[in-house]
Amino acid sequence: MAWPESVCEVRVRYAETDQMGVAYHTNYLVWCEIGRTELMRELGMPYAALERAGVFLAVAETHVRFMAAARYDERIRIRTRLERLQSRAVTFVYELTRDGPEGPVRVATASTKLIAMDRNGAARTLPDAFLDAIRRLRSVVP
Amino acid sequence: MAWPESVCEVRVRYAETDQMGVAYHTNYLVWCEIGRTELMRELGMPYAALERAGVFLAVAETHVRFMAAARYDERIRIRTRLERLQSRAVTFVYELTRDGPEGPVRVATASTKLIAMDRNGAARTLPDAFLDAIRRLRSVVP
Amino acid sequence: MAWPESVCEVRVRYAETDQMGVAYHTNYLVWCEIGRTELMRELGMPYAALERAGVFLAVAETHVRFMAAARYDERIRIRTRLERLQSRAVTFVYELTRDGPEGPVRVATASTKLIAMDRNGAARTLPDAFLDAIRRLRSVVP
Amino acid sequence: MAWPESVCEVRVRYAETDQMGVAYHTNYLVWCEIGRTELMRELGMPYAALERAGVFLAVAETHVRFMAAARYDERIRIRTRLERLQSRAVTFVYELTRDGPEGPVRVATASTKLIAMDRNGAARTLPDAFLDAIRRLRSVVP
Repeated sequence: MAWPESVCEVRVRYAETDQMGVAYHTNYLVWCEIGRTELMRELGMPYAALERAGVFLAVAETHVRFMAAARYDERIRIRTRLERLQSRAVTFVYELTRDGPEGPVRVATASTKLIAMDRNGAARTLPDAFLDAIRRLRSVVP
Repeated sequence: MAWPESVCEVRVRYAETDQMGVAYHTNYLVWCEIGRTELMRELGMPYAALERAGVFLAVAETHVRFMAAARYDERIRIRTRLERLQSRAVTFVYELTRDGPEGPVRVATASTKLIAMDRNGAARTLPDAFLDAIRRLRSVVP
Repeated sequence: MAWPESVCEVRVRYAETDQMGVAYHTNYLVWCEIGRTELMRELGMPYAALERAGVFLAVAETHVRFMAAARYDERIRIRTRLERLQSRAVTFVYELTRDGPEGPVRVATASTKLIAMDRNGAARTLPDAFLDAIRRLRSVVP
Repeated sequence: MAWPESVCEVRVRYAETDQMGVAYHTNYLVWCEIGRTELMRELGMPYAALERAGVFLAVAETHVRFMAAARYDERIRIRTRLERLQSRAVTFVYELTRDGPEGPVRVATASTKLIAMDRNGAARTLPDAFLDAIRRLRSVVP
């Protein structure tokens, strides 16, 4: 029973570079956010809808390992996998790659743990619809 | 009757540079925002308090002219002046400078027009306290 | 003889929102940068190639008028047009729209003037290949 | 023999907030960068000087744990400590706090590992002057 995953792509913006001539490191976490946004959309639970329903996912922990530079105008592929699901928290892991002359080059790996909150910032459980959808997926994905 | 003005300073962050080796241009507008934040604080009307009172200032127009590069770790002086006050809008102008070997170097000039909105994004008038405070200041500043 | 133009799209990132619940205003200029990047790519002169050839386009002036809010996860359409070409400068204009219930909603209009520089930040002329390509295009576009 | 540490402060910018009404999470890492910039300046080795000497510190790993929200206009205190020094890498740890009604509130803790590179992105050792200065400091700090 694998966890759901999703692949999407961004192009490095000029605004994202720094004077070292590469993408500034915190942008990798912004790309991860795009990755989980797309994964949630594909799972039928767009994050924007979650917020409208009063559920906010706050970032509780991030970990990034940087392996290679990402440069302006390069396409970065973001592979996002939902790795762990708890009643109040969800953990995503990411692999960022770009194309190199000899195949994909791993740019970074990352993980982020998010916790569910209500409008006032109080901890709450994830909606049942969310938990059920993930569990259902896990039982059908080979 | 001069308009109120204020001077503050930022140091260019590494995160703000781009691969041209200088501060990425949109950061100048972020520094302008810091300038008007400090001016409003000095006028006794911190913007954070304004928002808590249900008044939001949305940026309606920006204009920036870039004269010289701002580089990592340089100190940028932001001179902010409230230039025009209408019942529903306020215009600030800015001069950004850094120290050079022969005195201050003008890095950019800018203007931003902001309009007052309520929590729902509907246009509203600026609070009387805000308008009165500015008018009072103008009548005493030489 | 029309000027070349190009249309592309971005989705508003969570990272781009602010506590007013809308996209922070300076991001509009980042989207404009994406617009001119795509236009230059379509014209056969990717900006990354220009920099590799030692030509840097520095932003000299920006002007933005904000008409409507752009919100998280909305798709923003960026229409970019090269509006003026001088030997040392190029001006682009932009129209940003999003879909509304009754058709496209204009989110902002903007213009940016960029000037050509060499690696050391000294003014230089735009490469002939660039100037010629634009002129050629203008003579064939109806 | 303690490791050198430094304390500095930033004020949360409006640009740094997101629609959850708090500082967007990647800005914490930007503040950490400001923390190590100030620590290096206090150690007599400003990072800008290091780059001018051809030594670049690239971020190799980041880890952040978020404990409490940081809000617009709040002052965030950044305590930075150089925690580990290797011939080619340096690790900093950070504690971010803000004032609360009952004393300082821990906003986040973080660590970043940086590796030394030359202008071309090739790994290199840290300059002897840097290594010696840190070792000297460690032998005198109680």
